[in-house]
Amino acid sequence: MLENQIKNAIRDIPDFPKPGIIFKDITPILKDQKLCTDIVDALVKQTQDLDFDAIAGIESRGFLFGLMLANKLNKPFIPIRKAGKLPFKTIQQFYDLEYGTATIEIHEDAFEKGAKILIHDDLLATGGTVVATSQLIEKMEGKIAGYSFLISLDFLNGNERLEKYSENNLSLARYQ
Amino acid sequence: MLENQIKNAIRDIPDFPKPGIIFKDITPILKDQKLCTDIVDALVKQTQDLDFDAIAGIESRGFLFGLMLANKLNKPFIPIRKAGKLPFKTIQQFYDLEYGTATIEIHEDAFEKGAKILIHDDLLATGGTVVATSQLIEKMEGKIAGYSFLISLDFLNGNERLEKYSENNLSLARYQ
Repeated sequence: MLENQIKNAIRDIPDFPKPGIIFKDITPILKDQKLCTDIVDALVKQTQDLDFDAIAGIESRGFLFGLMLANKLNKPFIPIRKAGKLPFKTIQQFYDLEYGTATIEIHEDAFEKGAKILIHDDLLATGGTVVATSQLIEKMEGKIAGYSFLISLDFLNGNERLEKYSENNLSLARYQ
Repeated sequence: MLENQIKNAIRDIPDFPKPGIIFKDITPILKDQKLCTDIVDALVKQTQDLDFDAIAGIESRGFLFGLMLANKLNKPFIPIRKAGKLPFKTIQQFYDLEYGTATIEIHEDAFEKGAKILIHDDLLATGGTVVATSQLIEKMEGKIAGYSFLISLDFLNGNERLEKYSENNLSLARYQ
């Protein structure tokens, strides 16, 4: 079963990036291209019946499977990047981290008003960056068609923060 | 011809990230999945006869087509990341920027000693990060099997800096 294959491939790294956090390291997945293919196929299967116009992938691990998914579904891929990286005119969204703030950006011509956007990232934790991405897309008058993750840390309750943006919250591997 | 299609899709952004630089914006390519498919097919065709064991993609735009290429060729994908991002034990390489220094990292178990690594990034400019990646791989006792870029700014002479690491320097679109 794919969920177990993903969980077995992931390497738990204790105390990264800080004490008390167990980080889910996906680099072993990237070594196994058979597993990568199965992951993309499963992401396609989960999302292909949703109604959306483009996929927004969050820098930088959301670029990995995000573009592959967009390519398989023949949808435009939109990079969401950290401040200062996108070269054209951008719209910004600030958000709070545990200590300090962060900023993400999108190109102002990334999609047309009213477009339905599927947001992709490798992992949903507390949801800070994903919520900020959702706010960014709504600020641009786009609609959130849903979320697609490889891994969801459900015990961190990021899901609840996403409910107000879309009821479509898809993930290949969930940790309760 | 694919080279012209790539050049036509790229958007030139003057004075980014600083005055005098014309930045090559690949985000229009990412909107066009037919072109993305043609790009991956061409990257496969350019590299498939090289003898290599894994593909190292440089954060973060090297993650986009790097994983797709690795997947098509059924080779492990190794992320090269900015300092502090990789969670397991890492090997570091410092390098000089015009102002200050930067650091990239690789997981110390990314490949076996003697492995032949193809280095991928979206764009070769002056080659600073690509040279640092090459040094990192040699530090880990890997061999540089070659380089694969979407775009090469040949007028910046990054190619010359790569000659000592490998004679295989491949690119889909070159600016003279």
